[in-house]
Amino acid sequence: MKKTLIALAILSAANTYADEGMWMPQQLPQVAKQLKAAGLKLDPASLTRLTEFPMNAIVSLGNCSASFVSPQGLVATNHHCVYDSVAHNSTAANDILTNGFLARTLADEVPAKPGSRIYVTKDVANVTAKIITPDVAKLHGKARSDAIEKNQKTLVAECEKDEGHRCTVSAFYGSLEYYMIKQLEIRDVRLVHAPPAGVGKFGGDTDNWMWPRHTGDYGFYRAYVSKDGKAADYNKDNVPYLPKSFLKLAREGVKEGDFVMVLGYPGRTNRHRLPSEVDFTFGWNYPNFVKASGDDLAIIDRETKGDRDTALKYAARVASTNNYYKNRQGMLDSYANSDFLARKTKEHADMKAWVNADAKRKQEYAAGIEQVEGLIAKRDADVKRDFELNYAQPRMLSAARLMYRLANETQKPNAERKAGFQERDLPRIKANIASLSRSYDEKVDKALVMHHLVKYAAQPAAEHNANWDASVGVKAGMGAEELKAAMDKLYAGSKLGDAATREAWIGKSVAEFQASDDAFIKAAVAMYPGVIKEEAEEEELAGNLQQAYATYMKAKIAYMKSKGQAVYPDANGTLRVTFGNIMGRPWGTADGLAWNAFTTVKGVAAKATGEGEFNAPKAQLDAIKNKDFGKYVDPKLGTVPVNFLATLDITGGNSGSAALNAKGEFVGLAFDGTLDSIISDWDFNKANTRDIQVDLRYMLWNMKHVDKADNLLKEMGAE
Amino acid sequence: MKKTLIALAILSAANTYADEGMWMPQQLPQVAKQLKAAGLKLDPASLTRLTEFPMNAIVSLGNCSASFVSPQGLVATNHHCVYDSVAHNSTAANDILTNGFLARTLADEVPAKPGSRIYVTKDVANVTAKIITPDVAKLHGKARSDAIEKNQKTLVAECEKDEGHRCTVSAFYGSLEYYMIKQLEIRDVRLVHAPPAGVGKFGGDTDNWMWPRHTGDYGFYRAYVSKDGKAADYNKDNVPYLPKSFLKLAREGVKEGDFVMVLGYPGRTNRHRLPSEVDFTFGWNYPNFVKASGDDLAIIDRETKGDRDTALKYAARVASTNNYYKNRQGMLDSYANSDFLARKTKEHADMKAWVNADAKRKQEYAAGIEQVEGLIAKRDADVKRDFELNYAQPRMLSAARLMYRLANETQKPNAERKAGFQERDLPRIKANIASLSRSYDEKVDKALVMHHLVKYAAQPAAEHNANWDASVGVKAGMGAEELKAAMDKLYAGSKLGDAATREAWIGKSVAEFQASDDAFIKAAVAMYPGVIKEEAEEEELAGNLQQAYATYMKAKIAYMKSKGQAVYPDANGTLRVTFGNIMGRPWGTADGLAWNAFTTVKGVAAKATGEGEFNAPKAQLDAIKNKDFGKYVDPKLGTVPVNFLATLDITGGNSGSAALNAKGEFVGLAFDGTLDSIISDWDFNKANTRDIQVDLRYMLWNMKHVDKADNLLKEMGAE
Repeated sequence: MKKTLIALAILSAANTYADEGMWMPQQLPQVAKQLKAAGLKLDPASLTRLTEFPMNAIVSLGNCSASFVSPQGLVATNHHCVYDSVAHNSTAANDILTNGFLARTLADEVPAKPGSRIYVTKDVANVTAKIITPDVAKLHGKARSDAIEKNQKTLVAECEKDEGHRCTVSAFYGSLEYYMIKQLEIRDVRLVHAPPAGVGKFGGDTDNWMWPRHTGDYGFYRAYVSKDGKAADYNKDNVPYLPKSFLKLAREGVKEGDFVMVLGYPGRTNRHRLPSEVDFTFGWNYPNFVKASGDDLAIIDRETKGDRDTALKYAARVASTNNYYKNRQGMLDSYANSDFLARKTKEHADMKAWVNADAKRKQEYAAGIEQVEGLIAKRDADVKRDFELNYAQPRMLSAARLMYRLANETQKPNAERKAGFQERDLPRIKANIASLSRSYDEKVDKALVMHHLVKYAAQPAAEHNANWDASVGVKAGMGAEELKAAMDKLYAGSKLGDAATREAWIGKSVAEFQASDDAFIKAAVAMYPGVIKEEAEEEELAGNLQQAYATYMKAKIAYMKSKGQAVYPDANGTLRVTFGNIMGRPWGTADGLAWNAFTTVKGVAAKATGEGEFNAPKAQLDAIKNKDFGKYVDPKLGTVPVNFLATLDITGGNSGSAALNAKGEFVGLAFDGTLDSIISDWDFNKANTRDIQVDLRYMLWNMKHVDKADNLLKEMGAE
Repeated sequence: MKKTLIALAILSAANTYADEGMWMPQQLPQVAKQLKAAGLKLDPASLTRLTEFPMNAIVSLGNCSASFVSPQGLVATNHHCVYDSVAHNSTAANDILTNGFLARTLADEVPAKPGSRIYVTKDVANVTAKIITPDVAKLHGKARSDAIEKNQKTLVAECEKDEGHRCTVSAFYGSLEYYMIKQLEIRDVRLVHAPPAGVGKFGGDTDNWMWPRHTGDYGFYRAYVSKDGKAADYNKDNVPYLPKSFLKLAREGVKEGDFVMVLGYPGRTNRHRLPSEVDFTFGWNYPNFVKASGDDLAIIDRETKGDRDTALKYAARVASTNNYYKNRQGMLDSYANSDFLARKTKEHADMKAWVNADAKRKQEYAAGIEQVEGLIAKRDADVKRDFELNYAQPRMLSAARLMYRLANETQKPNAERKAGFQERDLPRIKANIASLSRSYDEKVDKALVMHHLVKYAAQPAAEHNANWDASVGVKAGMGAEELKAAMDKLYAGSKLGDAATREAWIGKSVAEFQASDDAFIKAAVAMYPGVIKEEAEEEELAGNLQQAYATYMKAKIAYMKSKGQAVYPDANGTLRVTFGNIMGRPWGTADGLAWNAFTTVKGVAAKATGEGEFNAPKAQLDAIKNKDFGKYVDPKLGTVPVNFLATLDITGGNSGSAALNAKGEFVGLAFDGTLDSIISDWDFNKANTRDIQVDLRYMLWNMKHVDKADNLLKEMGAE
């Protein structure tokens, strides 16, 4: 025991940091002092160069983060980030979701789920002046929205002339600033290795967001390009992409107190939101989301019971819904025990008082701040009105709407098309439509739609979408039986459930759609003019909101600066760095228990039940029992570590992010936060916040001693 | 978080102790240095004076410890130590076991369960030379046993001439030494206060031996004496006993790292046992005990289902059986994961090698050590043979045997009677026989007997007790139906189940017993000669074992001394002091979790289910919800602490022991150890061992804010 106490004493002396911050790489020199104090041994400036090591090894998968870990384009990420690709390749006969997958040679690697991408960031540039030009600055409403979109598209089109690249203009600080990110878009992505679900998803939804945690949440893709090194569609003749650099495995394991940083693509945080947004989110939106998600999970469970094939089709959706369900409920619990809204309200009032205390500031900001409040109220009313309706969309109706919209947009010159429907978007749309076969079942879909449609129909007529109703034959006040008859007629009248029929519609003309007697296509065609009108209204709102919100953020940044505080932008899916230390917590979830920084394979054996969510593979349990640990034993823990906690600021999208030590070496993968940390998406709690990493040693031990993935270990230089 | 780390750092610097040792008070100056290092502010010598504060405030309840906490003889102990008295006074109509009991005036206090005693230690003297006189030293076998017993009785009789006192000669160091303990025996014990079972037994058997723990395991008796201050039987005119001193409540709460000592009467430890005893206990005896206890619990549960009155009668037995069941299983689990037997075997071999390395030592010890091994093997064989038979005794047969034995012994002069059947023992025997009515049900008793009798009957004839079999009409090889017929005949043929009939037999003559046609009395009379013969054989073994064991212990003490180590005697129900520090544990029960030193009322609310074992009273939950905490909030925890861990060396019998701080002030009551600590009864584990105390602040808070026991708070000086 003494040893541990001494370790804690040293740790205390090291003056550790648990500070918030998802820093843009170029901001890191601003926090150089904190980085050094936390223990970083590298020059912070070396982390600002996106095309150099280690930043150029960090990639995005679209909604997950990942990194190159070999010179041959091997990509490490979370098991739950390759989950869809494993499910896609899994069948009842060859259930690799349960049993795991390991390609022992390049030839054994299989295509990831259609639409899978690996994005390698090449450049990030502030383009605010090119988006909000002096002319745009004078516009309002839809005109402003349209102009911003036009400028974005122009910049993107110019950038994407460099073939094989995807360029994105992202808004920062609530649309106050815009950056263009240029990424190599690798389209031939192959699944290389995923451990059995009993390792990669060990603990399942029960342990999700929980500590102690014992999840081997890792998996591997490989990036492929054409023989001449260009991004290309899948082709068996393609060759592994050779990244400019890749992460080196740490030779020494991490321990409590160590510096650690996580590099990835956090999706969205809401730290700069207004009090009214907080109130609406936690008072109305999340509670309703939790209810709807719980209902959907129960329906999917009921409808797929005893039908393994259908259950497999919905496995990814169930995983995702469960994840968000627990996430939102966790936030609601934290919110209920916090004074967040009161604090937010006071902060906002203080800022307004500061603005109003000075004539010049008042002149510059006051109107915008007032305007933003009104616009948000309008947006919230729309969200309430459409909540159940959004859940009540038959998947094939959505597919029909997507394809008909594409047909309409395709009539225009490419540059004038709506964002998301340009030439560059076609492959992604095709992939989405094709992948439906693997995640759709009519019976389940209809059960979900019916559940929400009944709720929607019960809303007063004034809160109905007349256009949608007329197009599908629904009316406010209809009972369940009438609604079912309407839906049965729609589903029965459509052939879009057939993959070949559905995919054949991509690229057809507007006239062909209009001539169709397919029920879903007819409905899509019927509601199209109304949808375009709604969209225009939304763009009017969006344009005004952009303008007002930018003013509010400008005021907030000025106010914070007046108090000597720097402001980092909310997460928006772009590359960020968060740093801190590996650290447990003196209080845990149950009264009288504290959290240790590490879990070990002892806990895997203790939790293993031989079935369900805790079905650790026998080979793994045998290896634990026989202490077949090789070189992966942590000297202090006396066994193999599994997961570890750190004081890092991450969120959804960070999944699969590489965790690096003070020397920039790979030590694990971030994959989760703890339930009482996730309120941090809105309200960062310095004391509580801990994220969870899978320890590199657990990955390597399991690959070596259980799954015998020696080929990959050799490739990564682990041997 | 930093605060906690600093606290731990200080703690580490303080060089804390978690050492084993149940010290006889007179030994404390030998460990004065350790006491000071751990933080004691008192002079250790002040703890050696048994008739001065604080030692004279520490009392025994026979199988629990307790202490005076007011000048009017108020005695604080554990809820589970007053449990039998609460159950005794509880009826279906007035279920004080569930609802709690509080006497608001002396007149409201009710007699404790018959036989309840409060023993106040007056003197402890080493009487080895008077027990093992030069003449006795020459004897062997039964002659030695008899002579030792005779000397004990003589000393006890002489001592007990001081009326109202109970004197006991206790063996120390495996019968190497004998001490005589003189205690005032207070016979009028009254129940003053017990919280509801939802507080005093909160967590029930589920939480028993567990951490985190939230049990308010406290209750109060009061000692009564005659008006002239003498120990006396219950009489409404008796008055509260005025102790020479009593414990003062600590004004400041304890915190992690604080010195703490526990003063009480630990029952039995086995730290000086031989390897063969370890092997038999953990390899055979405990596993069989666990099996039998589990069976008995299931039988009692089945037979009392839906019958609250009968369930209440067996409540104390269920609690006790559950307790031992979990205790033994916990030890078996720890044993399975330890190298205890190997270590013990090596230590024993090393000691023998040391003995044999020197001619004089070999001469003195070798034969005794060899002999003890053989005698233990014989004893173990007897235990195996009689195991099921001991469980298969009808309670009324046992009562008949006890009373008939009393009749036989009463024929002899008092001094020559078997220990336990002298005049001094009569009140206790009467109380035991009388209390049977409140804890006996024929149907349940028969079900338990039948279960074990079937197992006993299946043993080979050579492993049967022919005398017992013949007396009750049982034969080896009998089937369940035949056995049932035999038992039905016995039970139906006896009227001892009737309390008045049974109690009337106490004090009747041998001739009257022999003339009885009561089935159980006839069986008791029939087996008596054989029982006396068996007893003589046991005494022969005991006499030889005493002699050989004393030699072995003498050798062991000499051997330890040769290595510079002092030896404290195993616990034997006499007054001991254990000291250490309040301390959590960096590892807990589940991988990835650590134990904090304290639990709080937050955990009570979190565990409360409104029923069963976690049925916290509504008034308490309301007080927690409303933060109605008064002055009992711990400044660091921010709420009321409930239980705390310390590094103390306690065992059964220590239940109810006062925990005192560095200044000798009352800070709580020891009531349990944690499951992986209890192997310490055999093999002290320095790192793991933690005992559990109920924090004084929780007791006082619950008494003040929930149970409104203001009269007692005032009496204890808490207001």
